[in-house]
Amino acid sequence: MPQNILEQLDNTRDAALERLFALLRIKSISTDPAYKDNCRAAADWLVADLESIGFQASRRDTSGHPMVVAHSGGSGPHILFYGHYDVQPVDPLALWHRPPFEPALEETPAGTVIRARGASDDKGQLMTFIEACRAFKAVTGALPANITILLEGEEESGSPSLIPFLKKNADELRADYALVCDTGMWNPETPAITTMLRGLVSEDFTIHAASRDLHSGMYGGPAVNPNRVLAKLLAGLHDEEGRVTLPGFYEGVEPVSNTIKAQWDSLNFSAEDFLGNVGLSHPAGEKAFSALEQIWARPTCDINGIWGGYTGAGFKTVLPAEASAKVSFRLVGDQDHEAIQAAFRKYLEDGLPEDCTISYRAKDGAGATNMPIDAPYFAAARQALSDEWPREAVFVGCGGSIPIVGHFQKYLGMNSMLIGFGLEDDQIHSPNEKYSLNSFQKGARSWVRILHALAN
Amino acid sequence: MPQNILEQLDNTRDAALERLFALLRIKSISTDPAYKDNCRAAADWLVADLESIGFQASRRDTSGHPMVVAHSGGSGPHILFYGHYDVQPVDPLALWHRPPFEPALEETPAGTVIRARGASDDKGQLMTFIEACRAFKAVTGALPANITILLEGEEESGSPSLIPFLKKNADELRADYALVCDTGMWNPETPAITTMLRGLVSEDFTIHAASRDLHSGMYGGPAVNPNRVLAKLLAGLHDEEGRVTLPGFYEGVEPVSNTIKAQWDSLNFSAEDFLGNVGLSHPAGEKAFSALEQIWARPTCDINGIWGGYTGAGFKTVLPAEASAKVSFRLVGDQDHEAIQAAFRKYLEDGLPEDCTISYRAKDGAGATNMPIDAPYFAAARQALSDEWPREAVFVGCGGSIPIVGHFQKYLGMNSMLIGFGLEDDQIHSPNEKYSLNSFQKGARSWVRILHALAN
Repeated sequence: MPQNILEQLDNTRDAALERLFALLRIKSISTDPAYKDNCRAAADWLVADLESIGFQASRRDTSGHPMVVAHSGGSGPHILFYGHYDVQPVDPLALWHRPPFEPALEETPAGTVIRARGASDDKGQLMTFIEACRAFKAVTGALPANITILLEGEEESGSPSLIPFLKKNADELRADYALVCDTGMWNPETPAITTMLRGLVSEDFTIHAASRDLHSGMYGGPAVNPNRVLAKLLAGLHDEEGRVTLPGFYEGVEPVSNTIKAQWDSLNFSAEDFLGNVGLSHPAGEKAFSALEQIWARPTCDINGIWGGYTGAGFKTVLPAEASAKVSFRLVGDQDHEAIQAAFRKYLEDGLPEDCTISYRAKDGAGATNMPIDAPYFAAARQALSDEWPREAVFVGCGGSIPIVGHFQKYLGMNSMLIGFGLEDDQIHSPNEKYSLNSFQKGARSWVRILHALAN
Repeated sequence: MPQNILEQLDNTRDAALERLFALLRIKSISTDPAYKDNCRAAADWLVADLESIGFQASRRDTSGHPMVVAHSGGSGPHILFYGHYDVQPVDPLALWHRPPFEPALEETPAGTVIRARGASDDKGQLMTFIEACRAFKAVTGALPANITILLEGEEESGSPSLIPFLKKNADELRADYALVCDTGMWNPETPAITTMLRGLVSEDFTIHAASRDLHSGMYGGPAVNPNRVLAKLLAGLHDEEGRVTLPGFYEGVEPVSNTIKAQWDSLNFSAEDFLGNVGLSHPAGEKAFSALEQIWARPTCDINGIWGGYTGAGFKTVLPAEASAKVSFRLVGDQDHEAIQAAFRKYLEDGLPEDCTISYRAKDGAGATNMPIDAPYFAAARQALSDEWPREAVFVGCGGSIPIVGHFQKYLGMNSMLIGFGLEDDQIHSPNEKYSLNSFQKGARSWVRILHALAN
C-alpha cells in the first residue's frame, strides 16, 4: 500500500475542503427549473476541477441538466466512477440552522461535520473519489487504473436524460465495472458495501371534480369533494397488516435467504435506536417483518405529498375543484415496476366516483437490484475498506433506490459496486444535511486503498 | 308606498355605484392578518358614509377587526340591521379574469354585473340597505323606523370578537328584531326569505410523527407516515351510504316536515342544473336524500383543506414529519356543535397510531337556526318583496351558516329575518365573484318597500 499517497491526502486536507465548499455553494437543485443555471455551473466547476488533475473532461449538455464525463486514459482495469452533483430542494428552509448553501465546519458531540445541502448526498461523496485521484496523480504522476468518471445532474429528479445518454454513449462509457459512491457506512466505525437496493416507482397525480372551487355552505352535500376522494383512495392502499393492497404487488418478492438473514442478524441492528433517533419508537411497516427487513427486503407504498383546498391561515369553507398527491413505491427482488405503475393507475381509476377525473405527471420507475457479490473485486474492495477503518467492512442492504445500477446493467452490460461513507444521521433530503469530516477524509483514503487493490 | 323614494334610488344609481366601488376597493380580507389595516379602513369608510346620512356612527375597536355601530334614533319599530364588510381570501388569484379589488361593471349574457371580491358577499348586499336609508332621508328627511346598524369585520374568519361584543353592548344593540342581509334570491326573478340555516363546526389540526422529515429510502417501511395516518382518518369519516360515522352525529337531526317538503317540491329545483353549472352531474351526498334536502336539511362533513409532505415541482421521496387538514361540519336541526366537536376530536385521537400526536387550531362552532316564520313581520316583508320582483317571494332553506342569527337569539333574545339578493352564480368565496346590477338596484328598492311595510 502506497503510504505516501495517504499522507498526501492528510497533508492537503484544507485545500480539499476548500474545493468541496466551493462546489457546495452552487445551488444545483435539479427538481426545480428555477435552478437550471446553477446546475450548469456545478457541471462546469467539476469539468474544470477534473481537467486540473489531468482528466479529459467535458460538460455534455442534455435536454435536462448536463452530464460531466471525464477520461483518465492509461492502463490497468477500466473502471467507471459514478456520482451526482445535483441536490434535493431545501424546504422547509425555516428548519435549517444555517443557510443550506453556505457550507461550514461545525463541532458536534459526534465529531466535526461539514454542514450544507449536498454535503453527504452526493457532492461530499463524489469528491472523496476525485480527491483520491488527485493524490495519486500528485504523488505518482498517474492513476492506477483507466478511469472514466460520469457525474449526473438529475439524480434527485428522476434522471430523465440518463437512459438516452447511456444509450447514445454506450461505447464511451462501458467499462469492466462501475464504482458508485452514493451509499453509507454501517456505522461510524464500520464501512459497508451495499449489495441490495430497492427500486422505485413514483406517481404525481391530481383528482379533478367541479369546474371551480365551491362554497361548502352552498354545495356541501351534493357536490363531490376531491379531498375526500383522495383520502379514501390513499387510505385503501394498505390493509390492517400494513401490506399494500394492489393486486399482484407482491409478485417477485422473495423471502430473504437464511445466509443473508444470519449476516443481518449479526449486525445487532436496534430498531429502537434507529427509530429513536428521529423521535419514533414502533416499527410501522408490515407487521410480519423486522424493521431491518422492512427497510432492506420489503416493498413499500409511501405518500410523499398531499395537497388540496385551502391551506393558508384561518378558515375557508371551500370544496376544492381538485386535490393532488405524490405517491411512490419502493420495490425489491423481481417486482416489475411497469406492472406496479399500471396496477396503481388502475386502482385509482377504478376507485374514482362519478364526476371525477384524474391526470398524471408520471415518472419512470426502476426495479430493485441485487449485486454479484462473488466477483473478485468485491473481495478486494472489502479488504481495502477493512484496512482503513476500525472494523471490518460488511455487505449490507439499502432501502433507497439508486436506479443507475440497474441502468448500467441494462444499457452497458456492466455490474456496479456501491461504496460510500454517508452516516445514518446525515439528514440527507432533510434540513441541516451534514457529512462527517471523518467520512470525507477517510473516504478519500479508502478510495486510494481500493484503487490500489483493484489495480494489483 | 312612497313611489318618490323608489324614483330617488333610480335617479341616483351612478352615485350609489361609485360608493359601492369605493368600498370594494378596500382589501378587507379578515382571515389573513396581513390585511388588518385594510379592515380598519373599510370600517372607517362605513362610519363616514353613515354619518353623511345622519346616523350617529362609530368604529368600535375589538381585539380583532373593528365593528361599526350606527343609530338613526327616531320613532317606529326598533330594527337592528346586520351585515359584514370583511371578505374571503382571493386565492387562487390566477383564476380571476380581473384584479379582485378593482371593481367594474361587466356585461354578461345574464345582464350587467358588478365584478369584485365582496361584490355579493357582503359589501354589495349591505350597501343595498344603506342606499335605501339614504333615499328615505333624502326624500322625507327621516327614516321610517328607529334603525341601528351593526357591521362586522370578522364574518369570514369565525367572528372571534362577536360574542364578547354582543354581550358587552347588549342594551345598545337589542331591538324588536334583526334584519340580516347576507343571503340570496331563489332565482333572478324570485326573491326569498331564508328561514333555515345550517350551523358550522370547524377544526384545523396537524398530525405529528417523526421529529423531522425522513428519506423514504432510509425509513420507508418502519417509520410511520403522517400523510397515510391522515388519509385513513379522513377516509373513515363517511360510510358507503355517505353518512358521517361519528357516534351521535345525527342526534337532533329531524326529518323535514311534510308542509316544508311540499313547499320545496313546488320550487322545481333541478339538481342537474345546479350541479351542471359547476361541471358536476351526480349528487354526491347521503344517498337517501334529494340534493335540495342534502343542502338545506342534512348535515355534512367537508374536508376543506389537506396538506403534508412535498408539494412543489418534481419529486421528493420524503416521509414528512407532519400532515394537516381543515375539516368542517355543516349542522342542522338541534345538533349540538360542542358535542360534535368533542366527538370529532375523540375520533381523531382514538384513531392515532403509536408515535403520532395531534395538535389543534380550533374554531368556535354554532348550531343551526330555524326562524319564527309565523311572526307578522315575515308576512309584511314577503309581501313587500313580492311587490318589487316579477314573482312572489318564497321561504327557503340555506346550506350555509350565518352564526349571527343564533348569537342574536342567544345574547340579545332577538329573532332575525334573512333577506338578501345574491344569486346562485355569484361565485362567492371563489374567483370572479360578482353581484348582479339588478340585485344591487332592486335590492335597495326592496328595502325601501320593506321598511315602509314594517313601519306601517
